[in-house]
Amino acid sequence: QSSVRLFGALDAGVSYYDAKTTNLTTGASTKQSSWRQSSSGYNSSRLGFLGTEDLGGGLAAGFWLEMGLNNDTGDAGQAAGVGSGGSTAGVPNTGPALFNRRSTVSLSGPLGEVRLGRDYTPSFWNDTVFDPFGTNGVGTNLLTSAHTGDLNSIRTSNSVGYFLPADLGGFYGQFQYGISENVKTTGVASSDAGRGIAGRLGYTNGPVNVALAYGQSTVLDIPAVSQSKVTTANLGAHYDFGIIKAFVQLSQIKYTTDFNTPQAGTELKRNGYLIGLTAPVGPGVIRASYTVAKDSLSGVPDPEASKLSIGYVHNLSKRTALYATASRINNKNGQRVNFGGAGTAFLTTTPGNIQSAGVANGYDMGIRHAF
Amino acid sequence: QSSVRLFGALDAGVSYYDAKTTNLTTGASTKQSSWRQSSSGYNSSRLGFLGTEDLGGGLAAGFWLEMGLNNDTGDAGQAAGVGSGGSTAGVPNTGPALFNRRSTVSLSGPLGEVRLGRDYTPSFWNDTVFDPFGTNGVGTNLLTSAHTGDLNSIRTSNSVGYFLPADLGGFYGQFQYGISENVKTTGVASSDAGRGIAGRLGYTNGPVNVALAYGQSTVLDIPAVSQSKVTTANLGAHYDFGIIKAFVQLSQIKYTTDFNTPQAGTELKRNGYLIGLTAPVGPGVIRASYTVAKDSLSGVPDPEASKLSIGYVHNLSKRTALYATASRINNKNGQRVNFGGAGTAFLTTTPGNIQSAGVANGYDMGIRHAF
Amino acid sequence: QSSVRLFGALDAGVSYYDAKTTNLTTGASTKQSSWRQSSSGYNSSRLGFLGTEDLGGGLAAGFWLEMGLNNDTGDAGQAAGVGSGGSTAGVPNTGPALFNRRSTVSLSGPLGEVRLGRDYTPSFWNDTVFDPFGTNGVGTNLLTSAHTGDLNSIRTSNSVGYFLPADLGGFYGQFQYGISENVKTTGVASSDAGRGIAGRLGYTNGPVNVALAYGQSTVLDIPAVSQSKVTTANLGAHYDFGIIKAFVQLSQIKYTTDFNTPQAGTELKRNGYLIGLTAPVGPGVIRASYTVAKDSLSGVPDPEASKLSIGYVHNLSKRTALYATASRINNKNGQRVNFGGAGTAFLTTTPGNIQSAGVANGYDMGIRHAF
Repeated sequence: QSSVRLFGALDAGVSYYDAKTTNLTTGASTKQSSWRQSSSGYNSSRLGFLGTEDLGGGLAAGFWLEMGLNNDTGDAGQAAGVGSGGSTAGVPNTGPALFNRRSTVSLSGPLGEVRLGRDYTPSFWNDTVFDPFGTNGVGTNLLTSAHTGDLNSIRTSNSVGYFLPADLGGFYGQFQYGISENVKTTGVASSDAGRGIAGRLGYTNGPVNVALAYGQSTVLDIPAVSQSKVTTANLGAHYDFGIIKAFVQLSQIKYTTDFNTPQAGTELKRNGYLIGLTAPVGPGVIRASYTVAKDSLSGVPDPEASKLSIGYVHNLSKRTALYATASRINNKNGQRVNFGGAGTAFLTTTPGNIQSAGVANGYDMGIRHAF
Repeated sequence: QSSVRLFGALDAGVSYYDAKTTNLTTGASTKQSSWRQSSSGYNSSRLGFLGTEDLGGGLAAGFWLEMGLNNDTGDAGQAAGVGSGGSTAGVPNTGPALFNRRSTVSLSGPLGEVRLGRDYTPSFWNDTVFDPFGTNGVGTNLLTSAHTGDLNSIRTSNSVGYFLPADLGGFYGQFQYGISENVKTTGVASSDAGRGIAGRLGYTNGPVNVALAYGQSTVLDIPAVSQSKVTTANLGAHYDFGIIKAFVQLSQIKYTTDFNTPQAGTELKRNGYLIGLTAPVGPGVIRASYTVAKDSLSGVPDPEASKLSIGYVHNLSKRTALYATASRINNKNGQRVNFGGAGTAFLTTTPGNIQSAGVANGYDMGIRHAF
Repeated sequence: QSSVRLFGALDAGVSYYDAKTTNLTTGASTKQSSWRQSSSGYNSSRLGFLGTEDLGGGLAAGFWLEMGLNNDTGDAGQAAGVGSGGSTAGVPNTGPALFNRRSTVSLSGPLGEVRLGRDYTPSFWNDTVFDPFGTNGVGTNLLTSAHTGDLNSIRTSNSVGYFLPADLGGFYGQFQYGISENVKTTGVASSDAGRGIAGRLGYTNGPVNVALAYGQSTVLDIPAVSQSKVTTANLGAHYDFGIIKAFVQLSQIKYTTDFNTPQAGTELKRNGYLIGLTAPVGPGVIRASYTVAKDSLSGVPDPEASKLSIGYVHNLSKRTALYATASRINNKNGQRVNFGGAGTAFLTTTPGNIQSAGVANGYDMGIRHAF
């Protein structure tokens, strides 16, 4: 008898994206569009292997291996397994990335769980749980961190994690440390690039679920010169009123560079929020969200994007569902958020340029089959 | 209880290939040869995961993930998951290709099956079903399309497929559309490169099985200048006489380039046919085929290759078989078909050059174990 | 009912490595160190699929597919599936390496087993079986071949293997031939680069196990100019005294280059030995080993490294264990062996330079969960 359980999902659909940039001075506009076969519009396509072993005395060991899938092409889903630190400081691991969604081994007991390996960051966990669209498809919120070079925004390699035990009267929490794996030489300033430190604390009881998460990732570290960090803080909640379930999320992401020599550091900030809902309708669920993200730039109006999404999921069974989602993004002050698949030349206005505006539409229609 | 079924096969053998080029004027000849450990000489080495779910009312959902294997090295078999269109027009998807043989999710019911993902093309399906050697090993027929850059010759990524229901009195059929995923910009001619459109229609009843397939793949599309397409049409049949089962196949592959400005387009054509048989002998099967492919070139004699193959499969069980195949290719008019593994400098005569001739021999001996 | 069995292990830990180089003339020294999340400190992290089929008459067929895993990042473990010969002589196969630990299909019966595919070399098998630390983690012995470019040091692709049957009164043995897959042209000297020939013969009975292995790998072959070969010979034994189990190993690795024109060939030699023990202590096992490797260089003192390792494995169950290992390396005469993960600039003394000495320490602490 095998001690391994196979699990996964295939989610494939057809998507249409368009985006229009308008020059507010001349009125001229350009529109680009694309039809795509999309993966993971409702749930992430994946294949995994997991198992647990009861060790007696309340102790258990477990493992979890999960790969992403681009099922339109059969490729493994996520890009090469970027993680906090290869053998060179801050350099992502390359090579064939396989179980890049999660690859962990755990020991758990009455005092909680210790988990080693590649895992989700606490702040991304918050981001996806309190989004009616679960950060999948065109309805994905605008809050997720995407600062260039941040290896710890969604997942962290080389992580040591601790999870509070399950029976704390509704309280739950986790702490995560991602080892930078950099080499230190005695007498020489060393780099922390790649390091990730993060935590999450929440409370759930009956209809309520609320959680606060915080994470700090060292993106660049030029020893004795400067350190660049991404700091993520978010607070999310959902409340189930029965007829509808309401979602709310507040998020702040800061990219900070501090210099060792006496000079002013720099800071880029993205503040955002989300409100949303899900509503059961017979065998289906209606989903909707409105999300706003505003960047801080000094001297120019703040680039801002807002997104309105609405969708319907029709459950054919617990495992199989059809879905459709429509979403519209409005960019202001030169912000240029769009739907990823629509090409590189897309919406190339300068951030902070108040002379242009961009509107983008995205539509998903697909099937999700879990196993 | 898992809803996933594992399946696959490992097929490994030892092969010997040689090839001799003779200058018809001087009589001088060069011979090259190689011993190899070959994969997939009888059946394709592969590992897969599949499952189906009964949704009630005649509806069912299903998934199919299948990777190729080069079991002589342990590598995943097929090259990086080429498909119809990456984010740049006509550019194959790269990255770790995993389930590149097939990666689909399906919804099927009384009206047929809708299938999304990476799948075989209808014309390749015809090509392999009506070949006694099933397009595996040295006995593979000469008809399969291999035009440079055609991303839809054997499989298509980003495909939306429709299959007729099973109970149509023996008639069966499918239609497939591979989305190009190119970006269109308003007011600018856009590319269809990577798009595949194909279909297949057949009839099977008792001893007879016959099918016609057609496919058109846009290989290159320089908007407003030229479009290059590969068109494949083939007709195959087999008939089971009891003592022997007879196979026949007709095939035409055209590579056409059309120009938008008034000038003549170009067309390369490969016409071919196959006749073959299989004959049960105790626990084994004898297999034989003769296949001819002739290319059209203007102004010179048509390059032509013929191939005679004979083999024997000895079944040790339903899952395990030993096999041996011998095959001989004769090239005429500068044609230079050989057995793939025998090196790059191999048979480098100029197509259309009637001053040279090439003969190649290939031998497979191996074991196929299915699971 | 599936004929496939899933198996594997995840082994993750936290490791600390340091290394100190001292200039024996000036007394100046440099120390480097690194914390890492390590994989496979006790057992190799891996995921595999295997199965056997009883064919009757004492015959059986079987397959084995096993991938390595770097579970700190989720990447597939071993580097791209290097093997004896791609399509160019001696060139490793690249592409997505998946089942690079082992990928074989077998037919076995009363006369033994024939095995085709990618498999361990006989000499590495000897090296790992007679090491108390099983060539995993910081305790790994110093004997394993690591000559640049040797594609057959640990595993061989394209191999045809034969194993003696199991019931020979305690005697066991295997022979392995790795096909070079090079192309031969008549009248031209051809290359054997990539070819591997190896064997192993042993005897086990009650407390005793002893085996001799020999392997020869053609690393480079410049036809008609020179041939470079790695020859490995090792002899290992362990004896179970009950309270302790004693291990001993002798090893010689030679890198030889022979020239076709009359001139002296060259030869580099590494001689080494290991003594070790394991001792059961309640639910755990103490492990210890001392290993020495000495290289031969003409004209200078022989570079030499010795390693002392001690560890403890605490079994929480048959499948789950906690472990800790400490190991110390002493380098002499400019030898520069260290613990792999500690950076590229590490211990860069010149081999043969008796003016410097290096000491390295390695510590593993982790959990192994098998499934």
